[in-house]
Amino acid sequence: MVTSNAAVIVSINDVYRELPGILNLVQNNGGSIQHLETRKSRQSEKDFDVFLDVKADKQQMSLVGQALKASYNTISFTESSKAAPKASMKKTISLDKGDTKFIGNIAVLVDLDIADGVPWFHRHISDLDKSANRVLMYGDELDADHPGFKDEVYRKRRKEFAELAYTYRHGQPIPRIVYTDEEVNTWGTIFRELTKLYPTHACKEYLQNFPLLEKHCGYKENNFPQLEDISNFLRQRTGFTLRPVAGYLSSRDFLAGLAFRVFHCTQYIRHSSDPLYTPEPDCCHELLGHMPLFLDANFAEFSQEIGLASLGVSDEEVQKLATCYFFTVEFGLCKQNGDLRVYGAGLLSSIGELKHVLSDRAVHQPFEPQNVCKVECRITTFQDQYFVSESFEEAKDKLRAYARTIKRPFELKYDPYTQSVEVLDHPKAIAKSMKHLQADMDMLRSAVSKLPSFGVCI
Amino acid sequence: MVTSNAAVIVSINDVYRELPGILNLVQNNGGSIQHLETRKSRQSEKDFDVFLDVKADKQQMSLVGQALKASYNTISFTESSKAAPKASMKKTISLDKGDTKFIGNIAVLVDLDIADGVPWFHRHISDLDKSANRVLMYGDELDADHPGFKDEVYRKRRKEFAELAYTYRHGQPIPRIVYTDEEVNTWGTIFRELTKLYPTHACKEYLQNFPLLEKHCGYKENNFPQLEDISNFLRQRTGFTLRPVAGYLSSRDFLAGLAFRVFHCTQYIRHSSDPLYTPEPDCCHELLGHMPLFLDANFAEFSQEIGLASLGVSDEEVQKLATCYFFTVEFGLCKQNGDLRVYGAGLLSSIGELKHVLSDRAVHQPFEPQNVCKVECRITTFQDQYFVSESFEEAKDKLRAYARTIKRPFELKYDPYTQSVEVLDHPKAIAKSMKHLQADMDMLRSAVSKLPSFGVCI
Amino acid sequence: MVTSNAAVIVSINDVYRELPGILNLVQNNGGSIQHLETRKSRQSEKDFDVFLDVKADKQQMSLVGQALKASYNTISFTESSKAAPKASMKKTISLDKGDTKFIGNIAVLVDLDIADGVPWFHRHISDLDKSANRVLMYGDELDADHPGFKDEVYRKRRKEFAELAYTYRHGQPIPRIVYTDEEVNTWGTIFRELTKLYPTHACKEYLQNFPLLEKHCGYKENNFPQLEDISNFLRQRTGFTLRPVAGYLSSRDFLAGLAFRVFHCTQYIRHSSDPLYTPEPDCCHELLGHMPLFLDANFAEFSQEIGLASLGVSDEEVQKLATCYFFTVEFGLCKQNGDLRVYGAGLLSSIGELKHVLSDRAVHQPFEPQNVCKVECRITTFQDQYFVSESFEEAKDKLRAYARTIKRPFELKYDPYTQSVEVLDHPKAIAKSMKHLQADMDMLRSAVSKLPSFGVCI
Amino acid sequence: MVTSNAAVIVSINDVYRELPGILNLVQNNGGSIQHLETRKSRQSEKDFDVFLDVKADKQQMSLVGQALKASYNTISFTESSKAAPKASMKKTISLDKGDTKFIGNIAVLVDLDIADGVPWFHRHISDLDKSANRVLMYGDELDADHPGFKDEVYRKRRKEFAELAYTYRHGQPIPRIVYTDEEVNTWGTIFRELTKLYPTHACKEYLQNFPLLEKHCGYKENNFPQLEDISNFLRQRTGFTLRPVAGYLSSRDFLAGLAFRVFHCTQYIRHSSDPLYTPEPDCCHELLGHMPLFLDANFAEFSQEIGLASLGVSDEEVQKLATCYFFTVEFGLCKQNGDLRVYGAGLLSSIGELKHVLSDRAVHQPFEPQNVCKVECRITTFQDQYFVSESFEEAKDKLRAYARTIKRPFELKYDPYTQSVEVLDHPKAIAKSMKHLQADMDMLRSAVSKLPSFGVCI
Repeated sequence: MVTSNAAVIVSINDVYRELPGILNLVQNNGGSIQHLETRKSRQSEKDFDVFLDVKADKQQMSLVGQALKASYNTISFTESSKAAPKASMKKTISLDKGDTKFIGNIAVLVDLDIADGVPWFHRHISDLDKSANRVLMYGDELDADHPGFKDEVYRKRRKEFAELAYTYRHGQPIPRIVYTDEEVNTWGTIFRELTKLYPTHACKEYLQNFPLLEKHCGYKENNFPQLEDISNFLRQRTGFTLRPVAGYLSSRDFLAGLAFRVFHCTQYIRHSSDPLYTPEPDCCHELLGHMPLFLDANFAEFSQEIGLASLGVSDEEVQKLATCYFFTVEFGLCKQNGDLRVYGAGLLSSIGELKHVLSDRAVHQPFEPQNVCKVECRITTFQDQYFVSESFEEAKDKLRAYARTIKRPFELKYDPYTQSVEVLDHPKAIAKSMKHLQADMDMLRSAVSKLPSFGVCI
Repeated sequence: MVTSNAAVIVSINDVYRELPGILNLVQNNGGSIQHLETRKSRQSEKDFDVFLDVKADKQQMSLVGQALKASYNTISFTESSKAAPKASMKKTISLDKGDTKFIGNIAVLVDLDIADGVPWFHRHISDLDKSANRVLMYGDELDADHPGFKDEVYRKRRKEFAELAYTYRHGQPIPRIVYTDEEVNTWGTIFRELTKLYPTHACKEYLQNFPLLEKHCGYKENNFPQLEDISNFLRQRTGFTLRPVAGYLSSRDFLAGLAFRVFHCTQYIRHSSDPLYTPEPDCCHELLGHMPLFLDANFAEFSQEIGLASLGVSDEEVQKLATCYFFTVEFGLCKQNGDLRVYGAGLLSSIGELKHVLSDRAVHQPFEPQNVCKVECRITTFQDQYFVSESFEEAKDKLRAYARTIKRPFELKYDPYTQSVEVLDHPKAIAKSMKHLQADMDMLRSAVSKLPSFGVCI
Repeated sequence: MVTSNAAVIVSINDVYRELPGILNLVQNNGGSIQHLETRKSRQSEKDFDVFLDVKADKQQMSLVGQALKASYNTISFTESSKAAPKASMKKTISLDKGDTKFIGNIAVLVDLDIADGVPWFHRHISDLDKSANRVLMYGDELDADHPGFKDEVYRKRRKEFAELAYTYRHGQPIPRIVYTDEEVNTWGTIFRELTKLYPTHACKEYLQNFPLLEKHCGYKENNFPQLEDISNFLRQRTGFTLRPVAGYLSSRDFLAGLAFRVFHCTQYIRHSSDPLYTPEPDCCHELLGHMPLFLDANFAEFSQEIGLASLGVSDEEVQKLATCYFFTVEFGLCKQNGDLRVYGAGLLSSIGELKHVLSDRAVHQPFEPQNVCKVECRITTFQDQYFVSESFEEAKDKLRAYARTIKRPFELKYDPYTQSVEVLDHPKAIAKSMKHLQADMDMLRSAVSKLPSFGVCI
Repeated sequence: MVTSNAAVIVSINDVYRELPGILNLVQNNGGSIQHLETRKSRQSEKDFDVFLDVKADKQQMSLVGQALKASYNTISFTESSKAAPKASMKKTISLDKGDTKFIGNIAVLVDLDIADGVPWFHRHISDLDKSANRVLMYGDELDADHPGFKDEVYRKRRKEFAELAYTYRHGQPIPRIVYTDEEVNTWGTIFRELTKLYPTHACKEYLQNFPLLEKHCGYKENNFPQLEDISNFLRQRTGFTLRPVAGYLSSRDFLAGLAFRVFHCTQYIRHSSDPLYTPEPDCCHELLGHMPLFLDANFAEFSQEIGLASLGVSDEEVQKLATCYFFTVEFGLCKQNGDLRVYGAGLLSSIGELKHVLSDRAVHQPFEPQNVCKVECRITTFQDQYFVSESFEEAKDKLRAYARTIKRPFELKYDPYTQSVEVLDHPKAIAKSMKHLQADMDMLRSAVSKLPSFGVCI
């Protein structure tokens, strides 16, 4: 006789009166109780949740299930398949909203993966396929005040780009675009004007990496670089890659990409009527604003840190992280040799605001994530204030410290080999990671012991 | 006036007599000595090497160089470009054979990268392009006793496979092969016979992963799986990838692949005349022997550990590591629930030896790398002895401890984001890695602190 | 109305029949069930333990308790005082014999501290006061074949020493002894004869430290050193201290001392009739055999490691650790520059065995704790075999690895500031220790980053 | 022939002219140059320091030394004894003011210990004997406005206390004092008044620990507690001990004590004429203000952190740390459950300022060491501002981060076993510490892996 187990949660409000009934019901239908546990209900102070681990054969289980559902407020009834118990261990996570955690309903979670208050989140880089098309705006859906609103040709072109992004899947090469002369001209104008400002405005990491893009990725005034070339070069330098995107993603989906060192990158170009203006991010913004920075290891780590912090947290917390992203990756400044320099892509791709931000009229504050996360982001005007970091290293440390304060009932570990995140919510997983850390430490100790001792050469 | 610096090493045998002359020579030609240092020559007990850091303008420097070379045994004369000093820091490594290290000639090394006794080694996964074609046997070059020696069609087919591997470059998809019916039949025979033995002979990791290859990569009796599919699946699971290879590589080049989690994989098939015999590795051996194990995270780490240990060490040490590889990845056993089980691919793809190895006639020893590395590898007969690990975890720990004893004047750190190895030979690099370790530790501490405290649920 | 909670465990064998009755009983007596949980009984496969967290006022609780005890097999009923809940967290430990752990009965443990299969163990150095007098032999209780058996004066003297040890308490200075001429002569004879052998037999750590004892602690032929002086000197060098002991302790109590870097040290001297023979450890053995080694930092760590491993483990495991102690601290050898040298105190204080052990007649094996722990210790004859370590460092690593395999449901951490052991059995405690480790790591990283970079001086 | 080596530093200003002469001089006197190295002089931009490692026999060396000193500006000439080379390794430290470090003159440092800009610092707890009597005021030397200035009896009593402190040495018990009725009355008055305020003003750590002092150390209104009892109790709880002191120490000497968890504690009592006023710290201040906090582990760590940061840094940096000490240990506030609470001893022993500090009139700022260190300390009036920490944990983290920014060419590690500090200035020492850290990590990993897995109980 093949038996299986079911994890049952029943909600009751009188433990003395109702629990005996439940026991009877299970027994009378042939089930056997393996474990029983009560907890205070999370819905109501007065109620109890009763967790039961019931063992029965197929037929009995079916009867138990029906009877329970008929008579009680049965929150969940999950029969475990043979494979389930194993999986359940791995996916066990905390559910409660407070510090204390609930122990009973692990098996219940099997189908839910991460559940009960923890939003779904990406676990593998290929999960981005699921979210990359949840764009908030698509293709030729332009606002009435968009410079290309009345330009049918432009709208058609936008739609083409949107389709390319829409059909893109993880692992594929990014389609190469034959850019029109008009598009290349637009790019060329922006390229020419902005590169005049960089030597005096951009941070040293930008200035170091820009020539590499000229050398390896075809950055020049009369050539529009291809995302695929840039993506391959980034991968080699910092492990970042690009993924074409059809339009705006939600903050949650966009930041999730960063967790996997993936930058969702527009491929279309602003309207040619005003090369120095665009109401939305376009490929010129991405290429001139963002790319040089993603070649910097510390900046890449900083960006991924924001992404990892965003996985599985509440909408409110995602929004705070997105604000941190906005005031760093898009509008951030840093100090270098005592001077202010720009590393934010929103600034580095906007002639007007780039000049403004280093002027006396701009307000500069130190970057403190717990404060920054509450500042309002301006979309159509210059920012009210800008935030300054000492270094990407420092920004990363501060962001990490801030991320530690965000409520999430587990920590996540990124595995760059498999490009997936691991949920560290049980001792075995943590101990395994500690083992890896020990191995790293052993290697570093050996490295230290191989350093030359001063003066031994005498 | 633009000046530059040159790092000079001159060999002298009488410091009292010759050093003053050198000083004069530099001074007379307009050079200025910034630093001077002597050390005992590494060539001769009696001689001295003198290191000079000379500053001069372009013309003077040229004169100094000519004069030195004319009059002295000038070992090296390296003018630093403006960019050089920065680079030189990074590439500084120890040169001496003993424990003590030499301090003077860093700039000299700029062009040499890793030099002076440390063999060249792969630094980035794409460096495998440089070595993957250094095959010891190629295409249709079959030995006279090879089953396909007289089969012109087979030899032509082998040449096709060799050409495919030969033109393969890092980052490209692995060409898909249309296998002939004869080839599929050969595969089918082997597949059928071996899968009978696995349930009683293969280790649990093998048995767990084999069904995944059936599900995801087309493993079945009447279908020859494609390397590209397997490689993509491996990447997702453990970050391993396959790279087609035309024939035998040297131990050094083969093991180097493992350092980057790359397995050099043959794509051709043995001769159909005797499906259960092949004098060399073929794709059946790779697919049935190796692939299931590379899906196991611990095994993947173990394999990479051997690879990393091999980079930059002497030929003798490479050979010892190759022997460890041979008696583990190819011919290894492990204990599981008290029974012996097989994980070595050489065994798992050979019906005869697979039966033999678990019989009483086979000699079993515990896997101790420092002993195993000296055992002779048998190619044409069964092994004299086989080595047993408790687990891949244990095997990895032992191999790592053994690797620590191999002489190399630095440690290497693998960066999975950039798929490159970093040389940890100066404090800054080590400190940076320690910073990463601290961040990991902080995350793990946070993970621990989020674990449920026992009984808090009461 | 003041309410309290009680943690109750009741054993039942029919959950369907008996659980409702228990619920009724609690309700009828005015109690309120906060949490209820069942588990399979550890006594019987068929039975269940039911854990209840009952809330009630004083009178009700009394009634509930009486009723439960009257009607059910009530394993425990522990009312928590106000302070208890806090304490209970701290003292929660695992109880089960298998890998899985039970969650319910934390409060029950409050009074038991460490319980349910885990033997009592010392938590603070002053706890040694509780065990130091559990001597297996005391004062003048000499065996009939003891050289001093018929010497009334000697027996009286022994009793004096025993009394001193008996009244000694942690923190007190060790009483200084006025040794008789006869005693000093005995010491002198041993001192003279053994110091002839040391240069060719003792390990380098012994030879380095012996002169320090001559310089700082009055070691010389015609002076019997005082334990108090040695103890103070040891404390300064390695943190070890001495504690006078009246006779043999059990292995458990003796090893426990080492956990706190305390060496239980005899103060009496062997009978003068045969200065080179003693059937039991005496102060000459301690001073000449043990003391020089306890001045070595690595040896001190090794010794403490044995001690810490012994706390709270089973009698059988204690015995194995005692055997490891015996074949290292008392009879251990090590390799130095290719030669065998002695570090075991039993050897270093015995002229005959010291000569024997380095001769060809002695059997030498590598020190592997998992093997050594099963070897029989010889008391009246030379050992059948001796065990050789490469270094104390290596011995410590091996012992630590062995200790990890000993069953104990928690790890212990020694706090040298408070001279106490902390039980790491809940996430908070572990996370706190990880925080300390992070601080140490940060300091070490800073130390590395301050190391000179090679060649920067050029 | 016995030869020795000498480390010589000669200052020259024309390397071309003078270096040959030095070479000749050494050669002519029979010396042999083992290593020669130049560096830019630290005194003058134009000059060079030449470091020579000279080998010679006794007589030759003497000649070389004389000749060098006669002809050149010989900065140092240090002959190494046989033991010296070993010692020199250990004591090698960086000398330069910039980031780069000098390599040559290690041996020279042997006699200097820590030198060349690094102030002498305490290395072992017993070194406090050297500084504890460098008091800035002693015994009966009272200022004219001191309440006891004209009280001869009081001045005699003060002298007695001063003498006791003056003759105290590390390791001795602190002399017990028979306090006069007048003294006990003074204590009683203060005790009575302050304990009224504590429940509403003192932090929770204070309130938790105060009862322990009542229970274990005789704290009560009509009894003056003995330092020896408190010191013993502190040692057991946090490893802190007290050391009687005759008067004010310099900031450097006082903070050094904290590095060893030693608190320099006055034993005399304020003048009885005004029990609630004292112009200087007295034993009432120490006992009521400081002691309860030193029983808290986090506070103890925080205090030691300040002490360790102060060792070997410049006077200016010591002063900044002393200011941090002043505004934390003496005048610090912390937040607890949203309320401000006091933990500074200067406040907790002053009725007036204790009331003031929590009132609206007081200015409260967050504790940021880099700002606090520049604030002026008020001695005779209330502070202008007070600094608030979230917790001692947070304060410790911030102080440690601040300490990392203080210039010191090495890190220090405290060894609580030997109560000494180790200078981590060479790779071997750092690697050894990393080994210890690895062992700790291994233990913690094991502890984590022994934690119960959630839901396994089902």
